Amino acid sequence: MLLQTRDARGVVTLTLNDPVRFNALGAPMLEALQSALTELATDTGVRLVVLAAQGKAFCAGHNLKDMAAHPQLDYYQDLFAQCSRMMLSIARLPVPVIARVQGMATAAGCQLVAQCDLAVASTQASFATSGIQYGLFCATPSVPLVRNIPFKQAMEMLLTGDFMDAETAQCRGLVNRVVAPEDLDAEVEKLVQAIVQKPATAVRMGKELLYRQRELGLQAAYQLAGEVMACNMMDADAQEGAQAFAQKRVPHWRQ
Amino acid sequence: MLLQTRDARGVVTLTLNDPVRFNALGAPMLEALQSALTELATDTGVRLVVLAAQGKAFCAGHNLKDMAAHPQLDYYQDLFAQCSRMMLSIARLPVPVIARVQGMATAAGCQLVAQCDLAVASTQASFATSGIQYGLFCATPSVPLVRNIPFKQAMEMLLTGDFMDAETAQCRGLVNRVVAPEDLDAEVEKLVQAIVQKPATAVRMGKELLYRQRELGLQAAYQLAGEVMACNMMDADAQEGAQAFAQKRVPHWRQ
Amino acid sequence: MLLQTRDARGVVTLTLNDPVRFNALGAPMLEALQSALTELATDTGVRLVVLAAQGKAFCAGHNLKDMAAHPQLDYYQDLFAQCSRMMLSIARLPVPVIARVQGMATAAGCQLVAQCDLAVASTQASFATSGIQYGLFCATPSVPLVRNIPFKQAMEMLLTGDFMDAETAQCRGLVNRVVAPEDLDAEVEKLVQAIVQKPATAVRMGKELLYRQRELGLQAAYQLAGEVMACNMMDADAQEGAQAFAQKRVPHWRQ
Repeated sequence: MLLQTRDARGVVTLTLNDPVRFNALGAPMLEALQSALTELATDTGVRLVVLAAQGKAFCAGHNLKDMAAHPQLDYYQDLFAQCSRMMLSIARLPVPVIARVQGMATAAGCQLVAQCDLAVASTQASFATSGIQYGLFCATPSVPLVRNIPFKQAMEMLLTGDFMDAETAQCRGLVNRVVAPEDLDAEVEKLVQAIVQKPATAVRMGKELLYRQRELGLQAAYQLAGEVMACNMMDADAQEGAQAFAQKRVPHWRQ
Repeated sequence: MLLQTRDARGVVTLTLNDPVRFNALGAPMLEALQSALTELATDTGVRLVVLAAQGKAFCAGHNLKDMAAHPQLDYYQDLFAQCSRMMLSIARLPVPVIARVQGMATAAGCQLVAQCDLAVASTQASFATSGIQYGLFCATPSVPLVRNIPFKQAMEMLLTGDFMDAETAQCRGLVNRVVAPEDLDAEVEKLVQAIVQKPATAVRMGKELLYRQRELGLQAAYQLAGEVMACNMMDADAQEGAQAFAQKRVPHWRQ
Repeated sequence: MLLQTRDARGVVTLTLNDPVRFNALGAPMLEALQSALTELATDTGVRLVVLAAQGKAFCAGHNLKDMAAHPQLDYYQDLFAQCSRMMLSIARLPVPVIARVQGMATAAGCQLVAQCDLAVASTQASFATSGIQYGLFCATPSVPLVRNIPFKQAMEMLLTGDFMDAETAQCRGLVNRVVAPEDLDAEVEKLVQAIVQKPATAVRMGKELLYRQRELGLQAAYQLAGEVMACNMMDADAQEGAQAFAQKRVPHWRQ
């Protein structure tokens, strides 16, 4: 259901592998993702996670069939709490998570893209918060959506459930890059390379800081950022980077 | 001064009808709007509000002539408090409000567009926070403006008072769609249709949630959104939507 | 190191003048900027500040050579605190600050552009948060960056250190306007003119309000903005503006 591969650089690829159900986020898929993310969170050898998917769809969101079969408030509360916990685990994972979006990303599948730190999409990808089509406002998907794209555009997606193509998604800030389907792997790899070439400590400190400081006022954000940056400078790799700069040579990282 | 029509679907159109004064938001117009919004807020039959205007201008903002005639601090405090109360009533109205912008929207008129949940503009529309031209910084308009468009672009509009055309407004996020003047009604109707086809409960819960969660931190936002979504699922229409999905048929809504 | 000129209108131009070091923000440059900003903050005759730079680069950020020579936590803490204080002084300066970006703006140099209220760039300008290339995440630059451009685009800049050209920077909201190098001064002057023609009190009250209200919730933001706007209206120039409007004549400002 969830494939996991890892290369010599510490790049982990998690692949949603339930194409028959359009990689829906049923309880087993959510558990598999949560379990993988929990383990990766304490694995100091991992450098970056790519979240990919098999089949025509990237992810169709929650499994409406399962939900239809359990018309109980506590079932839904547990389900959305479980899903939100997994989404927060992406934001809190110490390393960057890149969504590799090859197809349709709807409802919690669109949320998954929005919640990842970065996203690369194929021109065949499309995006919708489509719960409203079935009488269910995409409430939890609206959380990362409104933090990634302009407010009125988020409102329109959420109230209409209409699809957005990949170019529009890029223009609005939902994905970083859009390429032809045959170039998707190469484009993801470019972004992966650009990040894994950087020292791990700086990347890890940076991601955490960015999520923390954006929720603070300007002054508190500066105070926190200054502290984090000073700590980062004491890291051996940052010292090597500064020395290399001063000596006009290429830096050699520990990791 | 303010026309109100309502169709069989529960779509209410409020039309600013003081074209001689460019639909300025003098005290009588503000009262008319407040009164209409207050009534609509508790009317469970209403599904959506379109805010339109008669004449060449959409809305010219506050009535500077009235303001010139009352050089008293408490007069201004009352006026801006009254206006802000009306603007907040738009955000708090349980149903979506779409601005239909056929012409110039300046100062508090531009604010009106920014404060609506969605906006469709004609290519003849234009937007400016022009108070600064008369020595008055558009302070209350800056509130929804900075929550809709990028910061430096908001700063420029507010400090220069310069006009922005409709295409630029769309690109920056101030309006959702821009069409030729003769297509304005059809485009608004498309958006109206897309929304009124959806179950009322999901739309109402969704709008409220979006405004509440965007002011919270990421974790608190997820917690609130998960609760709201679980409640939404217990609604009869959401149950019908899930059943219809499971049975591969078209859902039939109560409303 | 820092040139300062002032014209008859009260427009102050601060020019980073250390082209050999690409106008790096070493301690002396930071002190010069802080000292100038502190003085300008209480100078009621100043109307606007343009932040410009000599040479091919706008500003290369912190001086990595100095940092390599002082591998001490408290040195870095002091340095970043000093830099953040200066950046906050830009946001808190009572008058608008326009960045005139003629070339490369990297790391804390890119931060300087982001932290200015407005920015005009030459097509030869480019932008990067490049600290990560040397093992140092641009933590303090991320503070204004994430408040100016969409989140995923900020994340990509910060994690890759890649350069962004001026057109892209404009599209994303990092700069207001982009022109050919030979038109840079004229374009900055247009923006300067548009602002200094406006009454000083409205501009000063407006800038402060914008920074304060954007950190508040919607209701609190409206309350503050209404108070500020009522005070603004009691200013003699706002009264003159309203009278001029009512009498259909051009207003005459005190200042």
